[in-house]
Amino acid sequence: MTHHRVKRAWKYKAEIMDELRRNQLIATYRDGLLNDTLPFWITHSVDRQHGGFMTSLNRDGTVIDTDKSVWQQGRFTWLLGELYNNVEQRDEWLELAKHGAEFLDQHCFDPSDGRMWFHLARDGSPIRKRRYAFSESFAAIAYGELAKATGEDRYAERAQQTFQRFIDHNLNPQGTQSKYTATRPTRDMGFPMITIVTAQQLRGSIELANADEWIDRSIDDIRQHHIKPDIQCVMETVQADGGLLDHFDGRTLNPGHAIECAWFIMQEGKIRGDQGLIQTGCQMLDWMWQRGWDQEHGGLLYFVDVNGLPVQEYWHDMKFWWPQCEAIIATLLAFQLTGDPKYADWHRQIHEWAHDHFPDPQHGEWFGYLHRDGSVSSQLKGNRWKGPFHMPRMQMTCWQMLSEQSP
Amino acid sequence: MTHHRVKRAWKYKAEIMDELRRNQLIATYRDGLLNDTLPFWITHSVDRQHGGFMTSLNRDGTVIDTDKSVWQQGRFTWLLGELYNNVEQRDEWLELAKHGAEFLDQHCFDPSDGRMWFHLARDGSPIRKRRYAFSESFAAIAYGELAKATGEDRYAERAQQTFQRFIDHNLNPQGTQSKYTATRPTRDMGFPMITIVTAQQLRGSIELANADEWIDRSIDDIRQHHIKPDIQCVMETVQADGGLLDHFDGRTLNPGHAIECAWFIMQEGKIRGDQGLIQTGCQMLDWMWQRGWDQEHGGLLYFVDVNGLPVQEYWHDMKFWWPQCEAIIATLLAFQLTGDPKYADWHRQIHEWAHDHFPDPQHGEWFGYLHRDGSVSSQLKGNRWKGPFHMPRMQMTCWQMLSEQSP
Repeated sequence: MTHHRVKRAWKYKAEIMDELRRNQLIATYRDGLLNDTLPFWITHSVDRQHGGFMTSLNRDGTVIDTDKSVWQQGRFTWLLGELYNNVEQRDEWLELAKHGAEFLDQHCFDPSDGRMWFHLARDGSPIRKRRYAFSESFAAIAYGELAKATGEDRYAERAQQTFQRFIDHNLNPQGTQSKYTATRPTRDMGFPMITIVTAQQLRGSIELANADEWIDRSIDDIRQHHIKPDIQCVMETVQADGGLLDHFDGRTLNPGHAIECAWFIMQEGKIRGDQGLIQTGCQMLDWMWQRGWDQEHGGLLYFVDVNGLPVQEYWHDMKFWWPQCEAIIATLLAFQLTGDPKYADWHRQIHEWAHDHFPDPQHGEWFGYLHRDGSVSSQLKGNRWKGPFHMPRMQMTCWQMLSEQSP
Repeated sequence: MTHHRVKRAWKYKAEIMDELRRNQLIATYRDGLLNDTLPFWITHSVDRQHGGFMTSLNRDGTVIDTDKSVWQQGRFTWLLGELYNNVEQRDEWLELAKHGAEFLDQHCFDPSDGRMWFHLARDGSPIRKRRYAFSESFAAIAYGELAKATGEDRYAERAQQTFQRFIDHNLNPQGTQSKYTATRPTRDMGFPMITIVTAQQLRGSIELANADEWIDRSIDDIRQHHIKPDIQCVMETVQADGGLLDHFDGRTLNPGHAIECAWFIMQEGKIRGDQGLIQTGCQMLDWMWQRGWDQEHGGLLYFVDVNGLPVQEYWHDMKFWWPQCEAIIATLLAFQLTGDPKYADWHRQIHEWAHDHFPDPQHGEWFGYLHRDGSVSSQLKGNRWKGPFHMPRMQMTCWQMLSEQSP
């Protein structure tokens, strides 16, 4: 997925993940991606009339809300470009990526301040902007893949500018009223974590000049403020100085999110051949797997309290699709990098739990929202949050990882 | 609960709700309120050190977050004053109501703009203000009860001023960035509905001069914009002109909220002896009971889609305590006002489902958050949203209603 990828042989032992199992997994991820996930979204979400993508889809793919999520415009465009650049140069994928970028260009930026919207009507009329700037990070990596696919400078410029807007707004938000007073300043892991993966992507697509610096700075931030060896935990939200915040917000852990961050850091270790980074990522995975894995029903819980107290968020014990996807990647990558059979075992557990519960046998793709016990809570295939991203990224990433061993 | 209450004899028929059943229900509500709910909150939530109330309580009453919700300061103060004025003049209740009002006075208003905060640290330092102004409506009724209990003008003035701030900010928000652009203006039922009950309370406590006007205006608003006879539904959010909004936000119904509004309107009909209002309230209850009652597991669902499509909110099919409490009041009041055995049946269903699933047999009070199947999702007794309000209000209101028949 980047120019710097270090090809490594699998360290697996035959008794842990044999050739048959590996080939079965490759088939599951590759065929799932190419024959199920992608056709579902390409068939149902492309808006030929107004441009861009509509991702609020019912179980059978019917559009049930024509509004557009700016996150999903960037994310689907990125996925299509990434597939074109790394899997196969299919004209359809490039054409659809350009279709997405055109909608981003035409409707997703607010000319009054240069920031991006969050939520648009079908025709591109703006409905909502958020205080934060993740629309920008997803658009940046989308432009980056198009720059690589087409060689056109304008996409590379857009990628770089949009990344800079993401950074600038997060470091120094202008024109937005803060949600909180200055009484209790906090820091969230979301910004440094998304900076890592965004810079990794842009290093791979447009050779972003200062990518390594942003990655180093973000990993330092996470190590300094969010990783807590004394309690063996990755904290999502801490005080400004990294101190634990003994309130709901500070105690609430998001194991799937921390495990996603873990594989971004492992991936950086793999690319740089840096064992320290690999160790940090594996440590984060170890702690948060212990805290998030549901011993009773299987799967990763959405939120847990660092001290085992009740969590305030209502959906704390639901099983969402994306934390499972991120943990499938993280456990497989940890196994690839360390050969530790524990990770092959965890990967098998989460892979099987997810594939037993999320796929829709009737209309394809995955449900997104299950109850704690694994029963389906919502038949939605997509909304403003669930689109063609976490699941196909998992399928693509795991397929590529498992294929690296081949000559 | 107001000066204007019209005493009405129960129209019940002996075979529908006989004397034995009625006495059992009175005992359940009264003893639950006086021997369980109130002692739980009085024992665990009163902050003798910094004033006010801490409502984030674990199952056994332990404070698990010392932060203070401004809503809950107003609500508990109101409840204590209401009990003092309408149940029994216990010194403890008056002393605690004053304790709550003092904290409201000292910490809950922002001197820079006169608006109220939403979330404070234990010592009263402000953490968050919201775009909306419901802190004001709850504080207003709290001050109103204290005015009535003490006869002190300052409380009456505070009540009136705070009600006016609630109205003014909702009609013409100043100093807050809107969440949405002007692309698609909408209106929510929350403001007119809370205006009704707030004006009802203040009419009863301080004889608020223009209470009837505000109530009429709010009921007109709800009838004109939110009640849809053609589809037999009460819409929570509509376009500015009342048109249906065919997007997630517009299609999402909140049956418990609409049923709460239904009993506010029935109550107004009861007070005024206005059959049209009673009919409107019963109609709202009928439609939303049909849409919200879970035929499979019992209890009221949190959100349902007007067209039966999937809902975007994750907790849509959970059973929260408060919609059940509001439906217990609404069905009992509808039965009292109409004698229709359907309502006695519904009341029995919701009363029994709630009392079978929410009470904590070990530490008292009710759990707040159940899965769809009625199993407990969170052991929390309170947080910034659940405090001593919906459940004790239900116990007090139903106890009083059932007692009205007695000579």
